[in-house]
Amino acid sequence: MPDTIPADSIGIVSPSVQKFESPLALDCGRELKEYELIYETYGQLNADKSNAVLICHALSSNHHAAGYHSMEDKKPGWWENCIGPGKPIDTNRFFVVCSNNLGGCSGSSGPMSINPETGKPYGPDFPIVTVKDWVRSQARLADALGIDQFAAVVGGSLGGMQALQWAIDFPDRLRHSVIIAAAPRLSAQNIAFNEVARQAIMTDPEFYEGRYHEHNTVPKRGLMIARMLGHITYLSDDAMRGKFGRELREGKINYGFDVEFQIESYLRYQGQSFVDRFDANTYLLMTKALDYFDPAIDYDNDLTKALAHIKTKSLVISFTTDWRFAPERSKEIVKALHDNDKDFSYIEVEADQGHDAFLMKIPYYMDTFSAYMANVK
Amino acid sequence: MPDTIPADSIGIVSPSVQKFESPLALDCGRELKEYELIYETYGQLNADKSNAVLICHALSSNHHAAGYHSMEDKKPGWWENCIGPGKPIDTNRFFVVCSNNLGGCSGSSGPMSINPETGKPYGPDFPIVTVKDWVRSQARLADALGIDQFAAVVGGSLGGMQALQWAIDFPDRLRHSVIIAAAPRLSAQNIAFNEVARQAIMTDPEFYEGRYHEHNTVPKRGLMIARMLGHITYLSDDAMRGKFGRELREGKINYGFDVEFQIESYLRYQGQSFVDRFDANTYLLMTKALDYFDPAIDYDNDLTKALAHIKTKSLVISFTTDWRFAPERSKEIVKALHDNDKDFSYIEVEADQGHDAFLMKIPYYMDTFSAYMANVK
Repeated sequence: MPDTIPADSIGIVSPSVQKFESPLALDCGRELKEYELIYETYGQLNADKSNAVLICHALSSNHHAAGYHSMEDKKPGWWENCIGPGKPIDTNRFFVVCSNNLGGCSGSSGPMSINPETGKPYGPDFPIVTVKDWVRSQARLADALGIDQFAAVVGGSLGGMQALQWAIDFPDRLRHSVIIAAAPRLSAQNIAFNEVARQAIMTDPEFYEGRYHEHNTVPKRGLMIARMLGHITYLSDDAMRGKFGRELREGKINYGFDVEFQIESYLRYQGQSFVDRFDANTYLLMTKALDYFDPAIDYDNDLTKALAHIKTKSLVISFTTDWRFAPERSKEIVKALHDNDKDFSYIEVEADQGHDAFLMKIPYYMDTFSAYMANVK
Repeated sequence: MPDTIPADSIGIVSPSVQKFESPLALDCGRELKEYELIYETYGQLNADKSNAVLICHALSSNHHAAGYHSMEDKKPGWWENCIGPGKPIDTNRFFVVCSNNLGGCSGSSGPMSINPETGKPYGPDFPIVTVKDWVRSQARLADALGIDQFAAVVGGSLGGMQALQWAIDFPDRLRHSVIIAAAPRLSAQNIAFNEVARQAIMTDPEFYEGRYHEHNTVPKRGLMIARMLGHITYLSDDAMRGKFGRELREGKINYGFDVEFQIESYLRYQGQSFVDRFDANTYLLMTKALDYFDPAIDYDNDLTKALAHIKTKSLVISFTTDWRFAPERSKEIVKALHDNDKDFSYIEVEADQGHDAFLMKIPYYMDTFSAYMANVK
């Protein structure tokens, strides 16, 4: 709990819910007859509605990107480092919007929501959603908020993929895209990690083919394994070495299977606490959205063609020790922007935190991000 | 099945079992009152018993390193590429010995063996064994075979760690150590992957605290996840890209959770087939032996001190795209050998197969390995 809210925080915030009653056609061929998006906004929309910035979230986060829900809140929103007065996404200047993705488990329609056709939770019947579906649903949210064009669409990791897809699918509805720690599509290794996570969840006997809520249980073991595995890919080898090394929790080897090394303790804690706040069906959907993401596929598998008609200026950011979506992957986007002679900037940030670096307060990252956003008019 | 045994194979081989009836004191403080090691030998021990080469195996392999058990055998031993007439470990010159490690599940005493004190399988009561314990048990096997000194001790991955430990613990009992695709100890990331694998096994409801055989079951889901995860770390990102890319098994996205990408199919197959041939308790033991391996710990955490008294010549080999035990990790061994002005050779092999490269027939690797072994007298 913050005794007092830090001065550079947006402060106490609360979410809103937007209900959509016209059907949304999805890439999978199905449609959602009606759906809701939960979202938060920070700052003020200006008179000509030109200062809105859309934040897109990553795999396991949500619409609560900044500020605190109450004075009792232990932690602020997930991107508090980047969103707030005087921060890179300056709430004194921008009207910031962040929604929970469709299929999520934080308040937007998803597997835990009631299926209006059955009166029961969707569970595994919630349709598979894609990054393009999310972008479409976010565009409708913009419509509802009266925002014709975002000043910028911004995101890290899976959020960066949405920012890229926005530039491709709605070239007239944003002026800037900020694509952080992302890739233009997943590698076989990325898919492999997702598949192991999915198998851990789906083979958990308490998964019940996704209908675990009907059995009053959750596949907590599988979800824990999935999260532990995810965490390995979020941290760099260097970061793990720095943070945990081979330190032993009790200072000595016990020759047993309880926690011995500090890294084991960290991972088990991360895995176990995730189970209390995240839904397994949502986890499955999010990993599939990642696997399917491939904007070039509609353009002869040519990313250069995919980006030919975009109109945004772009900022692309990668982190040196990110091995989930390495700088080489960001450079594929940079190459396609170059090919098209687009106006963009690319920075590779020296950081030892791995993929998680995009969430961190790293001076060079904050400074260049701020400098770029200062010129977003 | 080979229609005919290839000419460069050692041919049909069969294992032997050596029983040891004097107790073996283990690092964990317990002792094995009696135990067996299953092993194979290839080639002929010469009159002065000076041409023996010990092969040490990695996490999931065993004593069957080369040749075929019968004409019906589908596959030869795991290191057929390196062991045989005219191969790097030339069975025309060397008497090759390879045993299944203690705690294994291929015939040496391990969790599936009968505990002589209870008349029932050890299961989880089999003691935790270390690389040092293995080296001690292999030295006793050498005694039993009348081998005072090995011409060389050779291994890849966890096997390379045994070759290194041999040089440290029994400096007079080997003339050469060949340490391939290894590391002087695991990183936090290495331990993290092992911990996720262990948690997958141990949280499987069919694990029953290791007493699954008493319940007529096996924790197949957990073991499958562990193996899938292992495979990701054995292959390089490049190798996966080359082998699988983003290829779809049915040529199109199906928007479901069945196998879609080829990499998913490969991993599920690898995971499922492993369950039929490997024991979960053994998997747990092997990962613990890896985590604990740290020869410097007895020498003020200083690898240079640990290697000060070794008498072997050494060959250290790493592979460029191995990210499980990267070349940098081999270079830690190289640095300590340098510090001590030891006689050794180091090669870094350009290979895109990742950690698995140590099993592959890569010309430069085969040629230099052969050249080194040719000078092992």
